[in-house]
Amino acid sequence: MEVKVMKNILGENDKIADENRKLFAEKNITVINLMGSPGSGKTSLLEKILSKLAEKIKVAVIEGDLFTAKDAERIERQNISVVQINTAGGCHLDAAMVRRAAESLNLDELNLIIVENVGNLVCPAEFDVGENFKAVVLSITEGDDKPLKYPLIFKESAITLLNKIDLLPYTNFNLQNARADLTTIHPNIKIFETSCTNGAGLDDFCDWILKEVTK
Amino acid sequence: MEVKVMKNILGENDKIADENRKLFAEKNITVINLMGSPGSGKTSLLEKILSKLAEKIKVAVIEGDLFTAKDAERIERQNISVVQINTAGGCHLDAAMVRRAAESLNLDELNLIIVENVGNLVCPAEFDVGENFKAVVLSITEGDDKPLKYPLIFKESAITLLNKIDLLPYTNFNLQNARADLTTIHPNIKIFETSCTNGAGLDDFCDWILKEVTK
Repeated sequence: MEVKVMKNILGENDKIADENRKLFAEKNITVINLMGSPGSGKTSLLEKILSKLAEKIKVAVIEGDLFTAKDAERIERQNISVVQINTAGGCHLDAAMVRRAAESLNLDELNLIIVENVGNLVCPAEFDVGENFKAVVLSITEGDDKPLKYPLIFKESAITLLNKIDLLPYTNFNLQNARADLTTIHPNIKIFETSCTNGAGLDDFCDWILKEVTK
Repeated sequence: MEVKVMKNILGENDKIADENRKLFAEKNITVINLMGSPGSGKTSLLEKILSKLAEKIKVAVIEGDLFTAKDAERIERQNISVVQINTAGGCHLDAAMVRRAAESLNLDELNLIIVENVGNLVCPAEFDVGENFKAVVLSITEGDDKPLKYPLIFKESAITLLNKIDLLPYTNFNLQNARADLTTIHPNIKIFETSCTNGAGLDDFCDWILKEVTK
């Protein structure tokens, strides 16, 4: 019973996600679904890359959060258009939520929308929101066992950001093992090592996004 | 429709959770539901405290994980009884899963069961598994904004472990703000500052558990 209901919900979600993707394609907008655990550094990464991206393209952010607008306020301070979705305790964004948020943006003016999902390494991976690609942030302090323990999100994501790379010396995170596991789960996954503290990898990540947007 | 189904599932779960709690009380077993984000340090904490606890009481662990038995294997190496629950991608443990796992333990011989939930700061908080109390691990590297962003899990938990406290100097985590927010959300919450690297706070946490078990 539970499974059947879940399948119906996912089927309905996929339909709306496909409509979203069609709409974004018509408007020539690239959409990134940015996922990761609470505290992996998703919002901090956005704070660092948005101004760089905004020099070249028109970008907006859709922020998912359980109750607060804390992350959206951080993005707004960068003078970037942002729409807040509050899931009222819900553990992921779905396609209908993203559709409603996107409708409040001026889609004719945008090249890129980054959707920051609810902090969660499990549920968001199951819900297509109509993005062009998913990206997952894994912070070094979370441990190198996470790809094998939470494989779906890494399998679904085109890129993984190994974030807080500046903290590597203070942890027992094995970079080589993590990279090997990621590649086992998803052979074509693109991996960036990033830090919002010392700026490592951020230019490379921006360049990659810009190439995707302009291609 | 979705909401109604969810209510039915939660109602059914609460019924089984109450049965679990009655069973554990009859057997005089204290049960802790240990929750937290992926990589907050739940398994590492268990590795550090189990041998200390095992000197005084009989303890077993129920390990929740999406697919692997990695954490259960780590616990087993401590010579502690452990049962693995694989949720097959499910984002939380429920009361029925814990009931089935508990049935494979020798309940007549135990004083304490620690249930390590799936790494997730959202969904596990919604599902009573029949525990005596919930405990949430928040690692310093996740950021001090997490209590206000994920309030339910901190409201539901009797204790919060501010873990990886040794990494405090390398982050912008504001301990005073975090403590204030935790107390706003849950006035009686008990807070421990812990580190599995330098051992800070682990004895205090063990003493607190032992007091709960023997009371």
